[in-house]
Amino acid sequence: MYTVLVNLTVRTDLVDEFVDGIRVNAAASLRDETGCLRFDVNRSTERPNEFILYELYADEDAFYVAHRKAPHYAEWKRVAAKCVMPGGHINTFAHPVFPEAIPEARADPS
Amino acid sequence: MYTVLVNLTVRTDLVDEFVDGIRVNAAASLRDETGCLRFDVNRSTERPNEFILYELYADEDAFYVAHRKAPHYAEWKRVAAKCVMPGGHINTFAHPVFPEAIPEARADPS
Repeated sequence: MYTVLVNLTVRTDLVDEFVDGIRVNAAASLRDETGCLRFDVNRSTERPNEFILYELYADEDAFYVAHRKAPHYAEWKRVAAKCVMPGGHINTFAHPVFPEAIPEARADPS
Repeated sequence: MYTVLVNLTVRTDLVDEFVDGIRVNAAASLRDETGCLRFDVNRSTERPNEFILYELYADEDAFYVAHRKAPHYAEWKRVAAKCVMPGGHINTFAHPVFPEAIPEARADPS
């Protein structure tokens, strides 16, 4: 299992467009990618133009290959390029320390 | 629903003790707190002494009151004080943008 945390600082005038775009990307990733197990979209309480995505994938290929070649990802990249501030995109890659405690592990198709 | 992201930089010589401590705290939080809906423990792939906790609570009280007064939290604070580097603890508070898409919302007792 592979964890991707994404911190995004969004242009304040484009938050609504960003939210529409990430809604589509998150839903399509969960619906169309068997290896995308979780995709939570969070918004900072203290800095309302900061968003944190919490994504779990079956393995690294499910993210680097399947996710990034999906049609909805191309559309998402277009929205992100427009709405995210320059330098406002930070990815953190990780692994669950206790994968047996991750509920989605039971449904993991890999 | 209330999201708590915790970034922790751990003393490299105390990673094993930290992992034992966070295993107990995560499991007890999920088992004993009805308002703790999710508690994932992740470890950075690039910086192996950095850990990211992803916690979801039913609401703010479930975190600030129920979680912080739980007996396992006091024990966890002791472990964290010993194992986490000075200045190596950063909390980020957030809310799910699409709570209806959060699987735990269905089991949310609040």
